[in-house]
Amino acid sequence: MEHFADRLTAAIHAKGNALCVGLDPRWESLPLELRARHAGGDLEAVARAYEEFATRILDIVAPLVPVIKAQSAFFEACGPAGLATLQHILRRARDRGLVTILDAKRNDIASTATAYADAAFAGIPLAGRLHPVWDADALTVNPYLGRDAVEPFLQSARRSGRGVFILVRTSNPGAGLFQDLRCDGRPLFLHVAEAVRSWSRENLGRSGFGDVGAVVGATHPAELAVVREALPEVYLLVPGLGAQGAAAADTTPAFRADGLGAIINSSRGVLFPFSPEASDWEARVEAATRATIAALASETPMGHLAPCEGYR
Amino acid sequence: MEHFADRLTAAIHAKGNALCVGLDPRWESLPLELRARHAGGDLEAVARAYEEFATRILDIVAPLVPVIKAQSAFFEACGPAGLATLQHILRRARDRGLVTILDAKRNDIASTATAYADAAFAGIPLAGRLHPVWDADALTVNPYLGRDAVEPFLQSARRSGRGVFILVRTSNPGAGLFQDLRCDGRPLFLHVAEAVRSWSRENLGRSGFGDVGAVVGATHPAELAVVREALPEVYLLVPGLGAQGAAAADTTPAFRADGLGAIINSSRGVLFPFSPEASDWEARVEAATRATIAALASETPMGHLAPCEGYR
Repeated sequence: MEHFADRLTAAIHAKGNALCVGLDPRWESLPLELRARHAGGDLEAVARAYEEFATRILDIVAPLVPVIKAQSAFFEACGPAGLATLQHILRRARDRGLVTILDAKRNDIASTATAYADAAFAGIPLAGRLHPVWDADALTVNPYLGRDAVEPFLQSARRSGRGVFILVRTSNPGAGLFQDLRCDGRPLFLHVAEAVRSWSRENLGRSGFGDVGAVVGATHPAELAVVREALPEVYLLVPGLGAQGAAAADTTPAFRADGLGAIINSSRGVLFPFSPEASDWEARVEAATRATIAALASETPMGHLAPCEGYR
Repeated sequence: MEHFADRLTAAIHAKGNALCVGLDPRWESLPLELRARHAGGDLEAVARAYEEFATRILDIVAPLVPVIKAQSAFFEACGPAGLATLQHILRRARDRGLVTILDAKRNDIASTATAYADAAFAGIPLAGRLHPVWDADALTVNPYLGRDAVEPFLQSARRSGRGVFILVRTSNPGAGLFQDLRCDGRPLFLHVAEAVRSWSRENLGRSGFGDVGAVVGATHPAELAVVREALPEVYLLVPGLGAQGAAAADTTPAFRADGLGAIINSSRGVLFPFSPEASDWEARVEAATRATIAALASETPMGHLAPCEGYR
């Protein structure tokens, strides 16, 4: 069983970049030609449209990027049909060799957290075997409940070589309300970051990285630099590029000097670089993906990575 | 459109108690006779078993208690079929006149939070009308991301007379790791509690309570007393009774002197007061529900509530 961080590092080396495409489908932004084929006017039709759209996005980006992140909220908003779509999309992404992150920001205590975690990772144990549910490589987790509530996620992840990304300093403008409160001389988010470091060090891979990462928004480059400095062996998952206001250069502090250590997420910037009327939307998605990779390569230490097909 | 806290208060007066039955189905604890009817050995069969079990539980407890809380994790763990069950169960609970809380501890930013919130409450706007998904009366929300991330939940709730319960001091043994950190002279959970008070005061009902409540575990009676004192117009949702170790008397600080202001959740204690072999499990559930209500009435200010059928 390969360590999560080693699989992630291999995928980054293989593609020569650390761009994560965020699958955040939104009905009102979908191409009109696609909406027209799923015009049932109910949530089941929207779920089918998301499935077609996400499938085509995966076909475009799979050769280019190492990681995708599926935003659970938009699939849950379509009810059970949307969650069937989420299953299919995650499976297709895996089949295309992508590392998959389920962005669901789950959190709960004890056996309830175990239920979330087993569903996210290898599956629910029943009648002597595991029954996969989301089967993602990694899950985002909210730390507010503390170590014993994070523990079931770590245990489940470690049974199957998966990873956990803990929210540390989120990308929203008001993230500081609680995360920046000074507690015993330093902001809350640094207390959380230090916990992430200690959890991550419990299980380092051959790559030197742990299986517990941290979510830190690109919209706060100063905090990003502080967390990068404090957590050298922790992968940072960095949202906020594009629609949320951060530029490629703002993600520079997320990387180690060797170009590793960060996964930079772009959702709307890569998914919807077109107006719904555009007939060439797939070409635009590919161009936006390539342009985002090029910007990151020229503006950040990610440019030090060389594509290396034989790494694995 | 009736205010959430007024509906909740009316339901508590109508039943004369503030017990919330937590629907946390667990396959290994279900009655054997019920498991035997759903022995497919896959998650779809488990989802059908949960639906039958929860339906029978609702039929038993609907005449006795004002509120139920469905734990999303156990339904999500069955995949799309489990989420269809969750929809059916929430609908049945509403049809039986129960106030419904979806315990999903959701959290995200901006339009992603809106997607979670609209799904939890009145539904997703599409083609000129709302399409209900979970249609719960209230949702639990994790506050770590700050005000602008909580705001979409408040807006969506207020459009349809629903409520939000913010995690303040959770019931797990390690809750204090971050929640008790001293920030500017007082613990983090009190900063969150003060935010809850200010959000709650934005929209008070005729009952004098707001539509933003706080989750505070019964396993920490001292913190419960502090929060009760600081937030007189806020409903407290109190987990931790029974299997987690708290006794009825431990919930005393959650109540105001008039017996209002608290909802006391019991999950395993009421759902599974039997061994799987028991043939009289439904009678045992009813007896456990009545015994829990009686203990709360004799040990806490809840005893000051009188059943008042005509309140609404």
